[in-house]
Amino acid sequence: MGKRIVIALGGNALGSNLPEQMIAVKETAKAIAGLIEDGHQVILSHGNGPQVGMIQKAMAELTRSDPEKYIPCPLPVCVAMSQGYIGYDLQNALREELLNRGIEKGVATVLTQVEVDPKDPAFQNPTKPIGAFMSKEEADKMVSERGYQVIEDAGRGYRRVVASPKPQSIVEIKSIRDMVDAGLVVVACGGGGIPVCTTEGHHLKGAAAVIDKDFASCVLAQQLEADTLIILTAVEKVAVNFGKPNQKWLDHLTPEEAEGYMGEGHFAPGSMLPKVQAAVEFARSGEGRSALITLLEKARDGMAGRTGTVVCQ
Amino acid sequence: MGKRIVIALGGNALGSNLPEQMIAVKETAKAIAGLIEDGHQVILSHGNGPQVGMIQKAMAELTRSDPEKYIPCPLPVCVAMSQGYIGYDLQNALREELLNRGIEKGVATVLTQVEVDPKDPAFQNPTKPIGAFMSKEEADKMVSERGYQVIEDAGRGYRRVVASPKPQSIVEIKSIRDMVDAGLVVVACGGGGIPVCTTEGHHLKGAAAVIDKDFASCVLAQQLEADTLIILTAVEKVAVNFGKPNQKWLDHLTPEEAEGYMGEGHFAPGSMLPKVQAAVEFARSGEGRSALITLLEKARDGMAGRTGTVVCQ
Repeated sequence: MGKRIVIALGGNALGSNLPEQMIAVKETAKAIAGLIEDGHQVILSHGNGPQVGMIQKAMAELTRSDPEKYIPCPLPVCVAMSQGYIGYDLQNALREELLNRGIEKGVATVLTQVEVDPKDPAFQNPTKPIGAFMSKEEADKMVSERGYQVIEDAGRGYRRVVASPKPQSIVEIKSIRDMVDAGLVVVACGGGGIPVCTTEGHHLKGAAAVIDKDFASCVLAQQLEADTLIILTAVEKVAVNFGKPNQKWLDHLTPEEAEGYMGEGHFAPGSMLPKVQAAVEFARSGEGRSALITLLEKARDGMAGRTGTVVCQ
Repeated sequence: MGKRIVIALGGNALGSNLPEQMIAVKETAKAIAGLIEDGHQVILSHGNGPQVGMIQKAMAELTRSDPEKYIPCPLPVCVAMSQGYIGYDLQNALREELLNRGIEKGVATVLTQVEVDPKDPAFQNPTKPIGAFMSKEEADKMVSERGYQVIEDAGRGYRRVVASPKPQSIVEIKSIRDMVDAGLVVVACGGGGIPVCTTEGHHLKGAAAVIDKDFASCVLAQQLEADTLIILTAVEKVAVNFGKPNQKWLDHLTPEEAEGYMGEGHFAPGSMLPKVQAAVEFARSGEGRSALITLLEKARDGMAGRTGTVVCQ
């Protein structure tokens, strides 16, 4: 029986620049089309690190070229642009692959805002570096003129850092649910979503933040009442003692086992740790829900129970 | 009775830079929310001239800053980014205005590709200037290195020109139709859509072109079997002898009357002419279909038959 699956695509699904992305999405589309062919309902989310970095640098160069005419472009606007750029290539490649297999199914990218809590402690302690390296003078200027927070990266210069708050809810969830119910393959929550905070009344204000795409995908999967959250990454399975002689690949993890391993520091922060955390949160969120962590090209085998690491009760 | 309406927003609905757009979309949202309150089904399209110009200039500055690392960004990718940027502000403002009126309705922006014919004569005679002015040397370099076509703009330098082919069909039409049927307010065909051509098989290739947003909206309205196409612009009604002592505002035009006036040269190319052409094409496309040309703030009055120029049989 077909399942409702939210798939969080990793960086290798998109490459890291314009030509790489055009090639990478073709392979990505093949893997995704396989799951659709198997009868699953698919919702795609994706990261945007290199893409939003490129756009942000471009907008900064624009401001530098004519500061009177072009004010600095807010980060949420750059995220919105990256959703447009990535969605275009991704939906196009998937549409083509589906048609090549004789599947006539609408594929649509929906701009997605994700609400974060302005009181999230992450805003007090921004840790996520974004944008180009700066000299000390440039960095000081950004701090005094724009209120940026910066960190020094040993030997390589200074970079702006922004908060990475936890996603609370997907603003466009009703639209996405209607689209999925109508049989569409939806691309949503690109780059973890455009981060916004509710201010007064119903107004949403863009936040200078980036949202982890695995956490955003977890919220998306919960709000869509998905059966499975697939988190695609650069390894086929999660391992304990990763890279050590006693490394052990894991086929299955209960949330409790996963928490035990997390407590022992087996998973790298900013890498495997948020993926396992998102998987645990989703597996705990409802009966029968499971998360799968594997390689893009193994997604279909993973859904068939042949590989990957499954997190479920 | 509620009608299905495609609304093509003009430049004043969005302003021409980042701060202007944030303010302009609030007024735009009020006008649109009024129509939704009246029970109409609304699909929004919009132009992107200043926005795609800004993005293109930013991406060109990026390439200039590091030509080894950043290849020139194709125009269709810039259009995709502009759909993300504009859709974010527009859907956000509309969502807020609807909630302020107690209307819980999903608003979603869908990335839209529009197919053009590679044999369209427009490709032989590109006329649409885009991007920044260049010196003769810069222009010559673009011609020899990238195959751009350029024109000289008397006294102001050289600019790249691209084709403005006629839109043939909306690639994501099925998705958009499903979304509209599901009760969503959809933002689609931003900037006239991302121009693509079918190459071999099912592959769509981005075209270095821009599509007129009024023509794209006309195709969108036809493919959605809309009742009404509203083209919003800077005047309340269409006039003959515009700006002359014998200027006459028009309340109603049949397609035949409109063609008569077009033949007499009453409407400015690149301004009112494509709007009247799109209105005529839509009015002729099916029984009971009509087009309305008016001001943004008069859209509701226009739908109630109190103002604007209506084109119908």
